[in-house]
Amino acid sequence: MQVDAIPSNATARETAIAALKERFGVRLSTGEAIRRQHGTDESYHPTVAPDAVFFAESTDEVSEAVKICAANKWPVIPFGVGTSLEGGVAALRGGLCIDVSGMNKVLEVNAEDLDVRVQAGVTRKQLNEHLRDTGLFFPIDPGADATIGGMCATRASGTNAVRYGTMRDNVLSLTVVMADGRIVKTARRAKKSAAGYDLTRLFVGSEGTLGVITEVQLKVYGIPEAMSAAVCQFPDLESAVNTCILTIQTGVPVARVELLDDAQMGACISHSKLEGLEAKPTLFFEFHGTSAGVVEQAETVQGIAQEMGGTDFKWATKPEDRTQLWEARHNAYYAALAQRPGSKGWPTDVCVPISRLAECIVETKKDLEETGLFAPLVGHVGDGNFHLVYVIDPNDADELRRAKEHADRMVLRALSMDGTCTGEHGVGYGKMEFLAAELPEAIPVMRAVKQALDPDNIMNPGKLFRMN
Amino acid sequence: MQVDAIPSNATARETAIAALKERFGVRLSTGEAIRRQHGTDESYHPTVAPDAVFFAESTDEVSEAVKICAANKWPVIPFGVGTSLEGGVAALRGGLCIDVSGMNKVLEVNAEDLDVRVQAGVTRKQLNEHLRDTGLFFPIDPGADATIGGMCATRASGTNAVRYGTMRDNVLSLTVVMADGRIVKTARRAKKSAAGYDLTRLFVGSEGTLGVITEVQLKVYGIPEAMSAAVCQFPDLESAVNTCILTIQTGVPVARVELLDDAQMGACISHSKLEGLEAKPTLFFEFHGTSAGVVEQAETVQGIAQEMGGTDFKWATKPEDRTQLWEARHNAYYAALAQRPGSKGWPTDVCVPISRLAECIVETKKDLEETGLFAPLVGHVGDGNFHLVYVIDPNDADELRRAKEHADRMVLRALSMDGTCTGEHGVGYGKMEFLAAELPEAIPVMRAVKQALDPDNIMNPGKLFRMN
Repeated sequence: MQVDAIPSNATARETAIAALKERFGVRLSTGEAIRRQHGTDESYHPTVAPDAVFFAESTDEVSEAVKICAANKWPVIPFGVGTSLEGGVAALRGGLCIDVSGMNKVLEVNAEDLDVRVQAGVTRKQLNEHLRDTGLFFPIDPGADATIGGMCATRASGTNAVRYGTMRDNVLSLTVVMADGRIVKTARRAKKSAAGYDLTRLFVGSEGTLGVITEVQLKVYGIPEAMSAAVCQFPDLESAVNTCILTIQTGVPVARVELLDDAQMGACISHSKLEGLEAKPTLFFEFHGTSAGVVEQAETVQGIAQEMGGTDFKWATKPEDRTQLWEARHNAYYAALAQRPGSKGWPTDVCVPISRLAECIVETKKDLEETGLFAPLVGHVGDGNFHLVYVIDPNDADELRRAKEHADRMVLRALSMDGTCTGEHGVGYGKMEFLAAELPEAIPVMRAVKQALDPDNIMNPGKLFRMN
Repeated sequence: MQVDAIPSNATARETAIAALKERFGVRLSTGEAIRRQHGTDESYHPTVAPDAVFFAESTDEVSEAVKICAANKWPVIPFGVGTSLEGGVAALRGGLCIDVSGMNKVLEVNAEDLDVRVQAGVTRKQLNEHLRDTGLFFPIDPGADATIGGMCATRASGTNAVRYGTMRDNVLSLTVVMADGRIVKTARRAKKSAAGYDLTRLFVGSEGTLGVITEVQLKVYGIPEAMSAAVCQFPDLESAVNTCILTIQTGVPVARVELLDDAQMGACISHSKLEGLEAKPTLFFEFHGTSAGVVEQAETVQGIAQEMGGTDFKWATKPEDRTQLWEARHNAYYAALAQRPGSKGWPTDVCVPISRLAECIVETKKDLEETGLFAPLVGHVGDGNFHLVYVIDPNDADELRRAKEHADRMVLRALSMDGTCTGEHGVGYGKMEFLAAELPEAIPVMRAVKQALDPDNIMNPGKLFRMN
């Protein structure tokens, strides 16, 4: 796989590293293993290591480090825990990786206001662990135990987004270190505001290209009185997808509705030892609400599913059963890889208006059959969002080519249906050409904003769109 | 009241008007009455008339007009129906007002996807009228029958925001004419996306300073199975506000919860002929959901209210009763003015974290008593947002001064509680100094974005923040 990687300027690199070493000592590392790890994410994209890694401990330190980089026009790549899926952390122009995973303090819990303030390196599981005794929880769940900063940077979402929204909807305010080292707070803590440009939303999804997110004020939610999960299997993909579509259109406030196709269910059954289920298209549901409300939601959805030919709901009401079910869902990726030892996963996602979802999925699967590839499908289908994971032999160039060609066709199909090239993985450097195809007139506007805020193009360069 | 207004360059004005007249004929007006009307909004801010008004009929026409203005570096001010509240339409540097009220077509209703596409001049009531037979509705309701374009521009919200969010949350995509006349679509129609910068959210709330919004793709919702409204009166403001706070913290998905203080209730009772109610602090509730869900929500909230000393709920379940109740709420402004013939209203709003709301309101009311002014209070208190309307004699300079001083103290109080200087009215030119106080480090970032997208500062100049 080709990568458009260019080493950084040698003088800039030496000067910046010397200054950073002097200031931060052993927390500035140029060791090869550490650099390599910090140029690697969970995608199929090749590793591109940064020249050095700085383990930051505060916003002020990030600011100091960025100022040194800015003075040398030397790139800066923010890093959480490396779970990005489109090469977001690859140091395409060399430079300094700023690892914020040590900035992992929960700074405030404002239980009365249903918000918290965290450092960017706090992971979503760590936050929920911290909140455990407060009756509150943070619902956004992209599967990986990503950092909150990374989730902001890629506008992450996941299984709960159909009910609770994405990171776009759940960030109240950000503290960001800009390309010149200035520290900017984007908003106050009020739940809504009409005061000026929405800089919070400008940084959410900017993938490190406009600044380094160091602190996040987040919405949290009261743990619902009742939560229950159910599994329903279907004779074919269309009836499963149509059950989901009708559920959304009926206005049932379902908390999660996840689709797994036959290939993915087969993998999950054997990997996660799920009992009493078959390798058939399946929906995993979760309902949140009052006890009566949850029963009412579930009855409505069970009725829709039955009309579509679905099985009776198999319930997981006890917390441990719910956990097992969602762990199986979260391990879908590893379950898929386990079907083919030695393989590598190539995950990709698209999102379409829900009226086109069944058509998009059916055509994609039909096209897949013709390629002979193994690529299980999972989807946050309540949002019109689905994923394929191509399970490929990384040394087989022809398999890679066929996967690439199929993925390209899938994205173009989604775009032809007024969808987006990525519902939640982000663009990184893996989907730049598709972002350009998706929003051709918008790219020059994005580029102008980038140039205004990062005139020397040092913030995560080579990502999202070309600068010329 | 002083206004920082500067006439536009005479040569630019003459050249641009001649070109616009040649192209658009009678739809370019320089008549004084029309100009005056287009420099006037519903605020207390003095009218500043534009040099000319163009009645646009399409995105392409807006683009052509902006190109003529851009060629002459002559200002452009977008105009819907003139319901802004912070002088948003005042032509502070002269120039062309582009009136989009004639662009009032609903272009698409995608019922299956719960979205619509409208021209910017469609008003919210017109949209709901259009949707009447579809089982869908658009919930955002700022009171005034504003245009959807104007509501986007000021990030409007209103009574339903506590359940359905603000314009920030309900716009899927915008078509915008940029400062050089280019037409940009900001996003596709998918419900979520991680594809590039969130330009949609950048334009929502930009108050015409970055471009002219001409088309909007909006979320709509299925009309709930059951809707019912209730009124509850309280012995004092604190118990009313605390009822609201506890309702939100309990997670009841209330659709509306509106506070009216004793002064406002007195005005509404006499203006809207409300029977069986007293001039006491009052909450108006509305519940949406299934029949059982609405009953359950109402019982929970009634329980909370009783503990706080509230009266039994007075119900409005029939559509006509609900309509009467919400009309009384929407007419609160006119009811307040009717208390003092010949007066003018000066509405203002702030928003604070909900844990500080009771304190903020109580201190504001206490401070008000000392001024001797009449200023009823209403609030979208579920969001921490409240309004005062100073009912003043426009010819009494001392009253104006006292109102201004009180309003300033209220905003500074909200800021000291980590709140915002405006929850939903916007900044216009009325709150520029407070935006600067609220987000001091963010202003240079906003200014850089503005300079990048409107280098000649022709888009609604003189609003939001100073350019130097």
